[in-house]
Order: sequence, then C-alpha cells, then structure tokens
Amino acid sequence: MAKPLRIGLIGCGFMGRAHSNAYRKVSNFFDLEYQPVLKAVCARSEASAVAFAKKWGYESVETDWRKLVAREDIDAVDICTPNNTHAEIATAAAKAGKMILCEKPLSMDGPEGVAMVKAVEKAKVPNMVWYNYRRVPAVTLAKQLIEEGRLGKVFHYRAKFLQDWTISPELPQGGAGLWRLDVNAAGSGVTGDLLAHCIDTALWLNGSMDSVTAMTETFIKQRKHTLTGKVAPVGIDDACAFLARFRNGSLATFESTRYARGHKALYTFEINGEKASIAWDLHDLHRLQYFDYQDEGKLRGWRSIHVTDHGGEHPYMDKWWVPGLQIGYEHSFVHQVADFLQGLATGKPAGPTFRDALETQYVCDAVLKSAKTRAWQKVKSAAK
Amino acid sequence: MAKPLRIGLIGCGFMGRAHSNAYRKVSNFFDLEYQPVLKAVCARSEASAVAFAKKWGYESVETDWRKLVAREDIDAVDICTPNNTHAEIATAAAKAGKMILCEKPLSMDGPEGVAMVKAVEKAKVPNMVWYNYRRVPAVTLAKQLIEEGRLGKVFHYRAKFLQDWTISPELPQGGAGLWRLDVNAAGSGVTGDLLAHCIDTALWLNGSMDSVTAMTETFIKQRKHTLTGKVAPVGIDDACAFLARFRNGSLATFESTRYARGHKALYTFEINGEKASIAWDLHDLHRLQYFDYQDEGKLRGWRSIHVTDHGGEHPYMDKWWVPGLQIGYEHSFVHQVADFLQGLATGKPAGPTFRDALETQYVCDAVLKSAKTRAWQKVKSAAK
Amino acid sequence: MAKPLRIGLIGCGFMGRAHSNAYRKVSNFFDLEYQPVLKAVCARSEASAVAFAKKWGYESVETDWRKLVAREDIDAVDICTPNNTHAEIATAAAKAGKMILCEKPLSMDGPEGVAMVKAVEKAKVPNMVWYNYRRVPAVTLAKQLIEEGRLGKVFHYRAKFLQDWTISPELPQGGAGLWRLDVNAAGSGVTGDLLAHCIDTALWLNGSMDSVTAMTETFIKQRKHTLTGKVAPVGIDDACAFLARFRNGSLATFESTRYARGHKALYTFEINGEKASIAWDLHDLHRLQYFDYQDEGKLRGWRSIHVTDHGGEHPYMDKWWVPGLQIGYEHSFVHQVADFLQGLATGKPAGPTFRDALETQYVCDAVLKSAKTRAWQKVKSAAK
Amino acid sequence: MAKPLRIGLIGCGFMGRAHSNAYRKVSNFFDLEYQPVLKAVCARSEASAVAFAKKWGYESVETDWRKLVAREDIDAVDICTPNNTHAEIATAAAKAGKMILCEKPLSMDGPEGVAMVKAVEKAKVPNMVWYNYRRVPAVTLAKQLIEEGRLGKVFHYRAKFLQDWTISPELPQGGAGLWRLDVNAAGSGVTGDLLAHCIDTALWLNGSMDSVTAMTETFIKQRKHTLTGKVAPVGIDDACAFLARFRNGSLATFESTRYARGHKALYTFEINGEKASIAWDLHDLHRLQYFDYQDEGKLRGWRSIHVTDHGGEHPYMDKWWVPGLQIGYEHSFVHQVADFLQGLATGKPAGPTFRDALETQYVCDAVLKSAKTRAWQKVKSAAK
Repeated sequence: MAKPLRIGLIGCGFMGRAHSNAYRKVSNFFDLEYQPVLKAVCARSEASAVAFAKKWGYESVETDWRKLVAREDIDAVDICTPNNTHAEIATAAAKAGKMILCEKPLSMDGPEGVAMVKAVEKAKVPNMVWYNYRRVPAVTLAKQLIEEGRLGKVFHYRAKFLQDWTISPELPQGGAGLWRLDVNAAGSGVTGDLLAHCIDTALWLNGSMDSVTAMTETFIKQRKHTLTGKVAPVGIDDACAFLARFRNGSLATFESTRYARGHKALYTFEINGEKASIAWDLHDLHRLQYFDYQDEGKLRGWRSIHVTDHGGEHPYMDKWWVPGLQIGYEHSFVHQVADFLQGLATGKPAGPTFRDALETQYVCDAVLKSAKTRAWQKVKSAAK
Repeated sequence: MAKPLRIGLIGCGFMGRAHSNAYRKVSNFFDLEYQPVLKAVCARSEASAVAFAKKWGYESVETDWRKLVAREDIDAVDICTPNNTHAEIATAAAKAGKMILCEKPLSMDGPEGVAMVKAVEKAKVPNMVWYNYRRVPAVTLAKQLIEEGRLGKVFHYRAKFLQDWTISPELPQGGAGLWRLDVNAAGSGVTGDLLAHCIDTALWLNGSMDSVTAMTETFIKQRKHTLTGKVAPVGIDDACAFLARFRNGSLATFESTRYARGHKALYTFEINGEKASIAWDLHDLHRLQYFDYQDEGKLRGWRSIHVTDHGGEHPYMDKWWVPGLQIGYEHSFVHQVADFLQGLATGKPAGPTFRDALETQYVCDAVLKSAKTRAWQKVKSAAK
Repeated sequence: MAKPLRIGLIGCGFMGRAHSNAYRKVSNFFDLEYQPVLKAVCARSEASAVAFAKKWGYESVETDWRKLVAREDIDAVDICTPNNTHAEIATAAAKAGKMILCEKPLSMDGPEGVAMVKAVEKAKVPNMVWYNYRRVPAVTLAKQLIEEGRLGKVFHYRAKFLQDWTISPELPQGGAGLWRLDVNAAGSGVTGDLLAHCIDTALWLNGSMDSVTAMTETFIKQRKHTLTGKVAPVGIDDACAFLARFRNGSLATFESTRYARGHKALYTFEINGEKASIAWDLHDLHRLQYFDYQDEGKLRGWRSIHVTDHGGEHPYMDKWWVPGLQIGYEHSFVHQVADFLQGLATGKPAGPTFRDALETQYVCDAVLKSAKTRAWQKVKSAAK
Repeated sequence: MAKPLRIGLIGCGFMGRAHSNAYRKVSNFFDLEYQPVLKAVCARSEASAVAFAKKWGYESVETDWRKLVAREDIDAVDICTPNNTHAEIATAAAKAGKMILCEKPLSMDGPEGVAMVKAVEKAKVPNMVWYNYRRVPAVTLAKQLIEEGRLGKVFHYRAKFLQDWTISPELPQGGAGLWRLDVNAAGSGVTGDLLAHCIDTALWLNGSMDSVTAMTETFIKQRKHTLTGKVAPVGIDDACAFLARFRNGSLATFESTRYARGHKALYTFEINGEKASIAWDLHDLHRLQYFDYQDEGKLRGWRSIHVTDHGGEHPYMDKWWVPGLQIGYEHSFVHQVADFLQGLATGKPAGPTFRDALETQYVCDAVLKSAKTRAWQKVKSAAK
C-alpha cells in the first residue's frame, strides 16, 4: 500500500510547473513505496494560486507561505520562489519539521547557506536541492562510468552554460519571470543561475575544487526595473568565466553567459581522463559522447550513445518507452522525485542535500570574490 | 467550465501507457474546453487491467471490450490492441455511437479499412488514428514550411525507419510485446508497423502517391511461437523497401527494416524542393534541418533548428518549458490529444481521420502486392 | 633508382587536372619503384593543350589523340575525355601496347565495355578505371573491416549521390564542362556519372548484384544546346533510384539526382551487418562512422572515426601529415596512382581493372533497362 | 612571363614537407606573377638533406644554414627549424637581404621577437610567419564576415587546441620530432606550439588583447631526454588555460593541452556577436558554423556551411575542384604561399608579418607570466 507524501508547493512559476509535473507523473512510471499528494500550493496572488491549483490538481491554496509551512497536513515543503527567499522559508520549514525540497541555488551566498544547512541538520529533516541535471540519464551514466574507473586519472574538466536571451537592452529587470536579472532577488547573475548547475555537476563527477580565478562582466549597465518603472543599474553578472584547479589535480575551465548569440540553453561538459573521455550537451540531452582509448587503434572514435536502452543498460530508461525514443528536460525532475521518495523508503537520502549544495555555494562565492579582487581564491569546504 | 471527455481504453501495452500519459498531462499544459477523464480500461486479464487502472488512475476496469463499448459513461473508445482486432472493435464502437481513437495502422489491409471508414462515417462519430509523429513540433514545423510554399516544386522525398531489435534468431514470435512478429496479429511486418508511419507523414507533407515498386524480405524464416511453444514459419516482412512516384511529380524512396544494426528507431525523412530542403530524424526529434537556397550564396548551409522556441515561433512549444529545453517522444501524443479535443470544440476535426489513414493502408497494400508480383502497382485513392 | 612511367594525358578538363596533380605529387609522398613523368598532354585546341602543359609541367602537347597513342615515348595513356570517346581511344591504345588509365564510367554501355575489356586483355596491358573513391582512406578502411569479417552477414546496403547543380532551366547542355548533360556525349545522366561511383564501391564492398528495379526521371525536358545554340530535348536521366538484391542475400537501395537542393556532392553509403554497421559521407570524407554490437551494452554508439592516424592504423595516412590533420578529395587520386605504380612493381594489378568496371556497366545497363521497362532486371556478370 | 622566387629551405621536418608541397603546388592552381623555385634545402645531416632534395626536387643542398643564407641564388629563406634557432637565422637572413618566411612561433619570447622585427624592418625585406590557419577557407570566410560587420558588437571569443599525444610517460623529450617537449628547443609547451595558433587567429579576427589570467600544468614531471639518454625534468607546460579581455570589450577563454584523450588536433574557435555567431573546428576544417539572428525567427539555427563553393563565394575555392569536394590541411599552406607571392607582385605584403606575430608573442609572454605569478597581466602592444 502506497504511503502518501503530502506536498506543499511555494511558488507558481516555471519551476513550480516543472516540479508539479514531476509529482504527478512519478507514480505512473516508477513503482515506489511513497506517492506524492498535491496538498497545497502557495502564491502571494490568490488568483494565481487558485488557477495553478486547478491546473495541476492541488487540493488547496495558501497566499502566505508561513501558513503553508505551519499546516499539519503537509509533509514536505517545496520552495520554488526567488533566491532571496529560500533561507527564510527553509529555516522556518525545518523548524516546523517539514522535509524540504529547495530550488537551486540553495542560497544567496555561503554564509546564508550555512545557516540553512544547520537548520535542516538540526531538525533532522530530509532535504534536497533541485540540481536536476544529475538525473538526466546521460549525465547519470557519466557518473556511473567515472565510478567504475573508466576514465582513469582525470586531467581536464570543462563546462559551459550559454544562453542569449538578455542581449536586448529593452529587456527590463525584476518582476515575474525577470527576477533573475534583479540582483536583490537573484543574488548574482549567471553565476548563481547557470554556473551553479555546472558546478554542482562538476563537484559530483570530479570531486572538490581547490581554487579559482574568475572574471565577470555586465554588458548592459542599466535596465528599466519592472517593479519601480525606473531605469536602474544592473547589479548582476551577465557573463562569468573562471579557471579552476580540482583537488584531484585536474584543471578546469567554466564559462557562462546570456550573450552567446545562437545558444538557447547550451549546457555542455567534457571530462578528459587518461583512459577515456566523456562529453554531454543539454541541447541533445539524450546522448552521451564517449571516447575509449582501450578501443582497438584503428577503430577509435567518439561514440554517440543514444541513452535510451532498456534492460538496465541506461539509468532510468526502463521506466519510459522503448529504445530509440527520447525523453526530455522534464524527466530529470521526475527522476529526482523518484530518487527522493526512494531515499525516504530506504533511509539513504538522495543528493544533492543542502550540505552538498552548500559546496556549490562556496565555489560561487570564491568565483565572485575572485572576479572582484582579480586574484585567485581558495574554495571553502562544505564537508562536516 | 471544462467539459469532460470520458475515455475507455482497450489494451494495456506500450501504447496504452503512451495514450494514458497523454490524457493525464494534456490539461496541465493546454487550456482546452474538453478534459479527458480516465473512465475505464479494458484488458483480457483482470489483474492486468486492475494494476493498470491503479497505476494510471482509471476509475474502473473491464475484461470484455464489448462491455466497455456498451457503457453509457464512455464518450470515446481508444483502441490499443493488436492490429487484427481494430476493425471489429471500431465497428462496434461506431455503432454504439462512440468517438474512436484507434492505434495505427488502421486495419489489416485496405478492404478492412474501407469497412471501418464506412462505419465511422455512417455513425458520424469523431475518429482519429494515432499517427503521432505528425505532432512532433519539428514535423509540424515542416508541414507549415511546405504550406507556406517555401520548398517550391518538390523533386524528391525519401524516408527510412530503421531498427535492429529482431536480429537474434532466438527471439520468439507472438504473445505480449511480440505480437508484431506474428503475421496473424500484425497483418504485416515493418510495412504496417514502421513504413505506415513514414507513409502517413509523406502523404500529409507531399500529397498522394501514384504508384510503387517494392521488395520485401524475411531474413529469419522461422521462429518459436510464444503461444504454441512451437517453431513456426515467420509470416511477416522483416524488411521492405520501395520506390514511389507521387502525384505532384516527385520521386521517392522508402525503406524499413528491423535488421539495421546500430539503429534503435531511426525514422528519418528528407524533402528536396526547388527552393529549399527539409530533413528530420526521430533520434533527435527536437531538431529540424533546413536548407534555404534563398540564403545569401556564401552563407548557405543546412540549418539545425532546435525546435524549442516560444512566442508562437515553434508549434506547441509555448506550452512547455523555455527555449533550449527539449521535449521527447511522449509529447507527440499529448499534442494529438490536445488537437483532438480542440477539434471537438471547434467542429474542425483533427487528422488523421480513419479516411486519412485508409490512404496509408492503400499504399501498404500496393507495396506488399508489388513485392509479391515484382511489378509496379498503382495506389488506390481513399478520397471520397 | 626510380623507373619512369611516361604519361600521355588526353583531355584537359576537371579530371585532367585531378590526375595531373596526382602524378605530380605521388613521388613526394610515396616511396615507389616507378615515378610518373608528364610526357605529353593532348587536347583538340592547341592553345588549351599548351596552357595546360605549362601549368602542369607536361613536356609536349598533341592535338590528335591518335598521335599521342602512337608515340613511342609514352608508356601509359590516361583517358580524361567524355564518355563517348573512351572506347575508341582505349581500343587504339591497347593495340598500341600502352597501359591505360581510363576515367569512369568505362564506356557508354555494357557491350561497348566488353569490347574494351577484350582489347586490353588481348593486349595484356595494365589497365585501370578511375573509380577514385575506393582510395579515400575511410572507404579503404571500410573495405578492411569487411574483409576482417567484422560485419558478419550483411542485411542492408544503401547508397546515395545527391547534387543540386542542374536545377536551373537556364543551364544549357553540351560543350565544355556541360557535356555531362548531353546524352550523346555522356550516355546517361546521373546513372553513369554518379551512381556508377556508388555501384563500383558497392560491388567492391558487398559483392555482385543479382537484380534491380529502377525508376528515372528527367525533370527539365529541354535545354539549349551549347554547341548548336538551339533548344533540344534532354536525353539524360536527371534522377535515378533503384532497389537491388545482392548475391549475398542483402537488400539495397540506391539513389542519385542533381535536384537535391542543399547537397553539393553528397555521396553516402551505409552497410548493416549482423555484428556491425558502417557509414560514410563524401562531404566529410575523412571520417568513418562505425557501430559495433560487440561493444559493451551501455556503451554502444556510432563511433565517428577521424581517419587520420599513423603507425599503420589508417590506410595511406602514414604518408601525409600528423593525426588530426585531414586530407581531401584530391588525395584519393594520388593513392590510386600510388597503387597503380605499386601494381606495376609487384605484378599484382591494382583495381578496378576494365573488367571490374565492366560489372558496374552491367548494373547501369540493368538499371536503365528496368526504368524503361518498369520491370525487374537481372544483372549480367562480368566475371571471366 | 613568370618571375622565379628562389627558395632556400632550412629544416627537413614536418614543416619542411608542408612548405615544400605548397611551393610545388601553388603554380598549378594559382595564376601568379611569381613562381617558387626550389633552389636549396639545408639540414645538418647531409644524407637527410640529399634525400629530402631528391624527394621534393630541390636543386642543391647545404648543411650549414649560414652558407645557404649567404648564397646569391637564394631570394627567400624559409625557416623550419626548432624555435630556439629562429632569431639567429632570421637576423642573419635579414642582414643578407633575403626575404624570410619563418615557422611559428616567431621566437622564444617577446624580447627575442622584437630584435627579429627590428632586423627585418631595418633590412626592408618581405617577411611572413607561417600561421597557416588564417588561410583555411572557412577561417578566411569568418574574417570576411567579421569585416562585413555581420557579427555586430562582439561579446565572447573562445578557443581551444586539444591533443592527446603526450599522455604516455614513456614518451621521451628532445630530438627529432620530439623537440617540442624540450623546453630549451621549444621555449614553452602548448603555449607556444598550440595556443600561439589560437592567439594569432584571435588577434586577426577580434583585435588586440588587454589582459590575461592563466594557469599552466606539467602533468608528467620528468621524461627521458633523447639526446642525453637521461631522465630529466620536463620544462614545458603540458596544458595551459587562460581568461582574457580584448580591447573591444569582449571576454575570452583559451585552453590548450596535450592530455585531452580523444582529440588529435582539435583546434576550435567560436565568436558570439550581437547579431551573429561563428564557430569552426580543425577536425572538419572545410565547414563553418554560422548563426544569424536576422534569420526569420522560427527558422533560426546554426548553419553548417560546406565551404567549397565556386564563383567567388568561398575564399580560394575557385582554384580547386568542384563544389562539395573538400580540401585539407595542406592547402592552407598553398594559400599562404599564393598570398605571399601576390603580396610581392602588388607590394601589399601578406600577413602575418613578423610584427603581427610579435603581438602573439607578447600574449604568450603575459600568459606564462600570469601562470607563474598567479596574477592578471597586461599584454604589451606590438604596434609601431
């Protein structure tokens, strides 16, 4: 008999939809002890909350997240609000004994993140951050290959997250859909929004970073603010690139921008090991590129693996369709929910936890500090 | 206020899942007057039906499709059973005044299809066949480009559907999941299963065919039959290729096989027109390749269009995530349900109807006859 | 001490250049017993011959091929003239005891080809036809893989040669550079010009063909003739597609056209075997695509092999630059000259000989006859 | 009547071959006032020099470069020796009034380069450095597009040059073919060898750099030295990555390594402008990727331009074969010779000159200094 996990969702934006879709679908495709129940959704605008609840099947609505957090019929709070609200909500939810699923990035910065980690660890509540790309099957396969030792010593890691949606100076900052351009709401620009994804994957696949040197740029210096109607300085980084040294001795380059004409959401990474190399690309997320030096000499080449096989060959894919039929972006969230629920059942929590995500925060802090000081920065450790 | 459309699903296999997923998701992403309600599912095994109903949220189960068809609380019957049962079920459902959504291919052959067309047209019930690939956004975009006249006169059409899953002689024929290898259940092999998809798209994009010359092959002549446990001759075509002339003067090649090592479900098509060309590939279904001769000379090249834009740029994509984030196979079914429901609301039925699908049947008949007679065959018209 | 091979070239067009370049380069890159000496070039126009000789370093010129063929200081005659002249020149050259390197296709048709084969075999002169694509390293590697048994039983072969340069109705037929559109000079259109390449490779890689069914089309029915200045019917095939059965039991599709907008010279082939598949593409001729079913399940994918390795890994590549640095189209001719010279030294003649090329001619004959009769045709054997 | 340009080549290695091939071919494909004459080749080993002269058609040999430089029958000296010898030879050649074609990088470092620039400018001799990638047609096309203003304001530049040939610790340093691993001969590792190419292209396409921050690594700390037979510390950088700011306000990342498993010579660059983006890749050097934001919305996509068109469409390609038939690596040298000879005829010297190449040297100096000091470094200007 399935056990219900009663979800209270805060925030009805893009991520609110992505998570709701995952909660609704997971039980159709995975056999799990726990099943999400869409108990309540919270938005400041009641009309928005009601419309969202109707669309997705939430049983009730709230307009004050404090009320939602206090409700006894909620087991898990899902935080999908702008970055500057994560800490307060998460801390309150932890105090209320709720499990927490928090959108990324965890926090505005490292110190704020530390407090959140302390809150959930003190409250001993299951906690997770939505770095969803770990659960794209091709990325999970990459993790498996690394854990199986197929790469050998790693020499290089490189990652990019390129977009082009903010090139127009007419685009305002702030408000619904555009809070990512408002430094007060977002904390940073591409660093916290896009590089955070690259960093989370990198830490997962390649271990901790030692130090970084970075540069950032804000190409358009001022934009109209949607909320005030006035032109205001832009406080976020439009672009950020950094060099890094990992503790395993490998060298890395990272870059993100929203000014790379022609790229919508091109998150790519590549890892070069002594024995093999791996590459992946969000624009064709169902494929993994793999080069194996142990292949016979004349037949060596990058393999384009269509990660859609069954029979346990490819992570998660047994749950979906038949070989050759690709899944998409949204499925990474379904997988993350499935793993979270599995973690509840087994007692082996699914990552990334708040503490895991704090490490990403520390890298972001070092990157932004390096860009400001124009000097190499050591990365703090988030390990206990 | 949304109007319910009460679905009765017959068959719990791969397609039963794909359709159920579409019914469940469509209202989360599309604003429609009608909303599917999962009323009943039917399978010969009660245990299967009950498990499926639980998994997908069907309200009730049946084990005899005649009962389901007779139920007053069912508006639409969805036929997901093997090909040899389509005609009988559809005819009965039409008589019972039900709308019908029938899996492809429509029928075992043209004559059987004619009877089905007559039945639904006499009963005046909305009817549709699940040639889902029309609703992959990249394919729908191809249709738009053709209707806008961008290709000019068409010279060539070529399509392939290549798989490799039946190469092993150990694979049995018949029974759950393998009825596609049993000629009695499937009617034909790759012709009705895979080429039917290619043909449906081709007729939609390029108009009617005039004549064909074909060859078929059965590489493995006998396989154990799952139901009888005995080795029996294989009656299906393992591979089929044909040349065709379209009524618009263009020349075409079609090929399908389940013996193309390395291809899981590689459905591709390409159209060469006087002014532009288009190509598409199911293994990366979110992309359309486009070559425009009107581009400046030195800058001409095949464009790889990542069909994920918003603002009405790319069909259906406004409903999903943000630019750059791809959707997958299952979404084509969601789109087809959305269009079907839209058709009910507007009175302008979504295709392909049974009559549309009959034309594909006629092409298949001509292909199989040509392979047998080793002579060109005219294709019958399905037009009224 | 190198032995000279004194070349007499007939024809100063595109192929005259390609061959001359090969003769000039081969000794710079290959260590061979024989070295080509550019003795004489022949063209009807003396001015053209003189200019060409100066450009390429030929020692002398002729304006009558009969004179060239009769010269004692010529060891080998290279025929680069339009197709309708091959037979007469080759027969005369054979009688004169010259080695012959003849441009493809060998002849206007099979019967003419038979006479040429008889002539060279009677005269016992080394002979070769310039089906140069066999010597693209990636194609040669494909041949190696097949001979090593890596594909296992072959199920499918498919080849295309797509161009788009004759779409304009303003293009005239006949005359320099355009004789390929004049049926009297060319014999056929894409069949002899482009499909002949596809057929030669296919026969080499996959053995003999049993039978074919074909269709051809001439999209533009009349064009101005350059020589007469008058509009005349177009006698060539603009497009040709055919199905074939090989003697090894595999099924094949072939297609060629000059009306495939967006493709300049897209010759592609793919072979699907039980154990592995191979694909190649002239637009990126330095790569071979390879899929090996014996790769570990989760890591199976098409490998893109950059055929530029040294140490004997990749055919011919030791002679050129360093790994990763690609060669191009012209190098296939250099390799063919090298192999021809090697064949002289070892007494093991390099293919394709006239007899090998006759088999391609027979396939072309069957294809054109099938297109005319709309019936399957058996392919004659060219074996002795 | 063609004017001879009498070449004296110093060094018979990989580059000696590449240049000799270019000198031999250029007049077959280009109509030029000047024609190279292969007058003399110089190597320390007489046997090597003689063999090379025979292979390539040099009229005479020298074993002391000073003698070659002093010869009256030499117009131009081509320097293909290890980096540590460039300055001395070039200075002597300038003093002797010879034109100089010098392999890249120009010098061991900036100060040495300054002296060389002074020498050639004082002597007023034509001078050029072999940064051959500027003359790959796709790269030249990129330059044209930028000069035509198609990119608009540039936001980003990124380049990589990845190889994998030094991963084995068994590989020795020093000696023929391996002097690139010996810091005394090479000056630096990937920085001067590979990044120098990336930098030259970048300065040409995107203007001057302002400042850089870099890191380098030597993965294998000691290798046997071929000349001494003893294990010695490795002084070169195996890998180098740097961030840069260009004077036009754009941000850049550069990376090079010989430890990127799976990449033979993967030089790639990408430029993102406000209106368009460009990307190129040495492994498929005949293609240019181009994204034009001014394309119609729904049809925007990266175009893969096969840079093989005629009629003046694509740089240099009129000289070669027909559209669709690719050229390779070696042709970039032929183009460079052609442009050098053209420059002599027109008096408008072809770049990069020694002074142009000095700017690359200054970037390398800043990069290596930054890696050592772990601080941002300004780049010196090479402008007069």
